[in-house]
Amino acid sequence: MSELRKDPIVSRWVIISHERGKRPSDFPPIEEKKKNKHCPFCEGSESITPPEILAHRAGSQRDEPGWSLRVVPNKYPALRVEEPMDAQGEGLYDIMPGIGAHEVIIETPRHDQEITDLSDEHFYNVLSAYRDRILDLKKDMRLRYILIFKNRGSAAGATVEHTHSQLIATPVVPKAVSEEIEGSIQHYRLKERCIYCDIIHQELRDRKRVVFESDHFVAIEPFAARFPFETWILPKRHQSHFENESSGSLKSLSPTFLEVLRRLDAALDRPPYNYFLHTAPVNKFDQPESYHWHLEIVPKLTKVAGFEWGSGFFINPTPPEEAAEYLRQIRI
Amino acid sequence: MSELRKDPIVSRWVIISHERGKRPSDFPPIEEKKKNKHCPFCEGSESITPPEILAHRAGSQRDEPGWSLRVVPNKYPALRVEEPMDAQGEGLYDIMPGIGAHEVIIETPRHDQEITDLSDEHFYNVLSAYRDRILDLKKDMRLRYILIFKNRGSAAGATVEHTHSQLIATPVVPKAVSEEIEGSIQHYRLKERCIYCDIIHQELRDRKRVVFESDHFVAIEPFAARFPFETWILPKRHQSHFENESSGSLKSLSPTFLEVLRRLDAALDRPPYNYFLHTAPVNKFDQPESYHWHLEIVPKLTKVAGFEWGSGFFINPTPPEEAAEYLRQIRI
Repeated sequence: MSELRKDPIVSRWVIISHERGKRPSDFPPIEEKKKNKHCPFCEGSESITPPEILAHRAGSQRDEPGWSLRVVPNKYPALRVEEPMDAQGEGLYDIMPGIGAHEVIIETPRHDQEITDLSDEHFYNVLSAYRDRILDLKKDMRLRYILIFKNRGSAAGATVEHTHSQLIATPVVPKAVSEEIEGSIQHYRLKERCIYCDIIHQELRDRKRVVFESDHFVAIEPFAARFPFETWILPKRHQSHFENESSGSLKSLSPTFLEVLRRLDAALDRPPYNYFLHTAPVNKFDQPESYHWHLEIVPKLTKVAGFEWGSGFFINPTPPEEAAEYLRQIRI
Repeated sequence: MSELRKDPIVSRWVIISHERGKRPSDFPPIEEKKKNKHCPFCEGSESITPPEILAHRAGSQRDEPGWSLRVVPNKYPALRVEEPMDAQGEGLYDIMPGIGAHEVIIETPRHDQEITDLSDEHFYNVLSAYRDRILDLKKDMRLRYILIFKNRGSAAGATVEHTHSQLIATPVVPKAVSEEIEGSIQHYRLKERCIYCDIIHQELRDRKRVVFESDHFVAIEPFAARFPFETWILPKRHQSHFENESSGSLKSLSPTFLEVLRRLDAALDRPPYNYFLHTAPVNKFDQPESYHWHLEIVPKLTKVAGFEWGSGFFINPTPPEEAAEYLRQIRI
């Protein structure tokens, strides 16, 4: 049996295939090629990267060893602060200069660590670095969005093995976010409530798609999950902007986020995945009551092929209720 | 230097990276695992597939050898005609029964052939089969869209090596198509012209993104290409519905389509790719003046990672003008 489910926020349809019903062990293991030599992100390689923007250090010098976390510009940036071009038209078409920023957050100096090996305190520092970079970059009024994301494993697009996250700031609000915002505003106009708050209430009542719950956060498998084991983490209290969260709140997020990543690692044998932070646009955003920041974690277990590219539909062979059940039962 | 380009139809932004400027030889070759044994699509294996829906045969019996092209239901369908379920709500959420169809078009009985090995006449039969299946399925008034697509190579999601296309019919118009339709209608309201016709005129005047032109069709690299060597084929004369094309028109499409696929094969050393047909929805579609059917061919050369999933932006390291130049110079 298959069913079509509609994401209530962005109206994206997915096909949930019950009979394909894939369990964690049905996904073939992904081979990772190890390429350890001359890692630019290891302690001691500081001179290979561009000069650091931010670091957590205990007394050592800038761009020298002795750090626990380091943020540097991407050596091959997709976008940069200065571009020698103006916005222009070309007949029907629009071109904008590629203004923006592209940074790398190196989460640990140790090549042999994954983020799930970090302590709650260390990972809190990573989350604080996310927040601090957003707070700094949003001072540039030309920027409209700052996306934090992580690619883990080469099948998920990681080109450097050493664990790291990335940040790309853009002068326009990306389509994936503006669709969420439009859907949220539409719901708010109708109900005067945030759609994410409504989803959290319904999920906490039903519980069948809840993976993990802590005092201030909840992790769920979304109702219309595009991918097997797609998992979202949301703050229970309404908040549109990640960077407005207090240190106390990020201290509480750290163990929840780590718990969810460790359960995914245990259930799926350390799968390749992407995660990204969806937070409200920076500068000129006046609907904070309707949008709710959240994290989306997307394990890379299936191939996106012609049907998905051609339709925007996704076929998910693991119903989210079953994925949640597996993840709830994991004991670490 | 990077620039941001906006697709004029769906307002999707892409980052065109000039300095990454990848040439065809910069993309690493993709290894294909050969798994030839017990191929269900070979001549002689007719009993392994579900009974055929359509076939081109010279006198032989149904579901027996002696065919040149065969259409069968997918053995593991994502959607099917009968589903034991009604549309339902679940609090905030919407569920629809997975009504639809999922078919496989086996383009040749020979395992050793790719579609680019087929004659113009044989490939015309493939295109006619696409049209005939759409004409047959659209009689079912519950269906709103019929997507034809092809996955070539396992990196592009093909699970059976033997060359084949697929068809999935859905009871809703997929997001990727409805976004094109909305953009087209908006342009038509403003200009009273089809946006695709306008694009064709501009491209044929500029010529820098034209790959190949024949009497009735044109192949271009789109201005805001998401992927390196993304190529579209469009009929020069306005037509919203692929299935309304005459046999003469499909006879003219066959050599053009083959020429473009052969050039991509030559330039990129037989890359994995997806192609899909974007045609107007079936049943209840009343804006045929604004929408223009076309084919999109998407080589799978880069990895879609956290940034793309999180933003809906794409980073394309090969400017479409350079890709067009490479493809124009190919002599086969």
